Amino acid sequence: MSLLVTGSIGIDTVETPHGKRDDIIGGSAIYFSYAASFFTPVRLVGVVGEDCPKAMFNVFEGRDVDTGGLEVRKGSKTFRWHGSYVQDMNEAVTVEVDLNVLAERAPKIPQNFLDSRYVFLANTHPVLQQEMLGSLKSPRLVVADTMNLWIQTEHKELTRLLSKIHGLVLNDGEARLFTGEKNLIKAARQVLKMGPKFVVIKKGEHGCLMCFDRGEFVLPAFPAEQVVDPTGAGDSFAGGMMGYLSTQGTFSPATLKRALAFGTVVASYTISDFSLAGLQSTTREQIDDRWHEFKQAMSF
Amino acid sequence: MSLLVTGSIGIDTVETPHGKRDDIIGGSAIYFSYAASFFTPVRLVGVVGEDCPKAMFNVFEGRDVDTGGLEVRKGSKTFRWHGSYVQDMNEAVTVEVDLNVLAERAPKIPQNFLDSRYVFLANTHPVLQQEMLGSLKSPRLVVADTMNLWIQTEHKELTRLLSKIHGLVLNDGEARLFTGEKNLIKAARQVLKMGPKFVVIKKGEHGCLMCFDRGEFVLPAFPAEQVVDPTGAGDSFAGGMMGYLSTQGTFSPATLKRALAFGTVVASYTISDFSLAGLQSTTREQIDDRWHEFKQAMSF
Repeated sequence: MSLLVTGSIGIDTVETPHGKRDDIIGGSAIYFSYAASFFTPVRLVGVVGEDCPKAMFNVFEGRDVDTGGLEVRKGSKTFRWHGSYVQDMNEAVTVEVDLNVLAERAPKIPQNFLDSRYVFLANTHPVLQQEMLGSLKSPRLVVADTMNLWIQTEHKELTRLLSKIHGLVLNDGEARLFTGEKNLIKAARQVLKMGPKFVVIKKGEHGCLMCFDRGEFVLPAFPAEQVVDPTGAGDSFAGGMMGYLSTQGTFSPATLKRALAFGTVVASYTISDFSLAGLQSTTREQIDDRWHEFKQAMSF
Repeated sequence: MSLLVTGSIGIDTVETPHGKRDDIIGGSAIYFSYAASFFTPVRLVGVVGEDCPKAMFNVFEGRDVDTGGLEVRKGSKTFRWHGSYVQDMNEAVTVEVDLNVLAERAPKIPQNFLDSRYVFLANTHPVLQQEMLGSLKSPRLVVADTMNLWIQTEHKELTRLLSKIHGLVLNDGEARLFTGEKNLIKAARQVLKMGPKFVVIKKGEHGCLMCFDRGEFVLPAFPAEQVVDPTGAGDSFAGGMMGYLSTQGTFSPATLKRALAFGTVVASYTISDFSLAGLQSTTREQIDDRWHEFKQAMSF
């Protein structure tokens, strides 16, 4: 089944203890699309400025990613982010950020994408997320991400969005900020009351936590000895998770668990190199092998 | 098989967002002993001052803890610790600490304890740890804990201790400090080179990581909605782990994994109430049930 993603596309400059890369492709929708395309066809919706080199999208060559929803907006400039993990590999310091085209209107979802059944609304203004969701015909599974900025400035719209989606993905700091609850399980339970059927809280190197009505599930990160660039780990995680879910008929707790483990494994490849390089040198077979290795390592 | 533990015994004052408790029993050897006694007979070696109310040790009534190695030293005062988790449930702020008798000579291991096969050297000066270990006849499994203070001031003696033990338990901050390695798997691998067969890194609410020659094993903490007092979680974890190991004939990776899961489950009861109250209201049956629940929740 086709999986639609809307989110940011950016030109990144990233510094980590392993080096610096200038003008590399980034953004939530990019990492998500690449990660999800190991599992299912992906429909990418996003917007860049006319300064964006076309060659950047060569990364999707030979992959089942439909870039028909990619708008190159005249007179606008592409979103740019310069982040540094030199001090702390667990949290980027934003050196510079230029929202550029992301501060303008949302991209339009192409007509032939409107029948998408699986949808991931990557982080953007919750009003735009609702608008894009509203234009879809009959989505079967809708999962959204968000960020601190909207939690602080658009609490009401975010709450409105929650009543319309099946799952929310956010990180631990965001979950605490949104609910005022320090305990993550209590925080997740509070979010569940606002509508979603499940909540996934990402904890970076400490793995993730999923809560649903009948219980919860915790998973450590895949033990990685080599972390080169954590950028995109969360979006790759979501991509792996949604990619796998899109191939399944059910969203039972057991299916969600397996999906989370796939997300974890895919993210472990992302952080092994800069930008998309870690994912680009990976095959679905390797992902499946590592998934089984992870499953094995988790069982006792 | 009898399990010997040497470590601190203290009178604690603890403050958490759930309240304050004055003059409650604490110390690494106390939490460890109680936790391990769910699994196996425990031999407790420790020292208190003459100010320590005898009634404090009533907690071990009816439990298989031999307090024959408990020395009440005349003219000395009991170790006291006053900690607060009011700001951060993950890390105690020490309001006041009086080492008192802990700053004196180590307690003597009674003659009838010298044949102990399973040994846990809870945190104390690495020279004392080696002395106590040296007096034992033929220990089969020796695991030690340590702390920042000794890592910083007694690096050489700590390294010497490592060449004589089978396992080391320490927390994430200590592992990083000891090895200068930020990545915990790399840090653990470095410790392995100094002698131990396995290293367990405790990550508090984020679970634990074990490394041994042939691989590693990560485990999240048991998802706890109610955390009242985290004091003693690490020692209870070690107690559950060693208690279970003492009942097993092997230390295979599979056995170590199960032991870590028992440690995780026992610690989840400790943090549910102040001091030993959480463990005191728990049965071995409940521990086994929760262990199976945890195992189930971990499998996908």
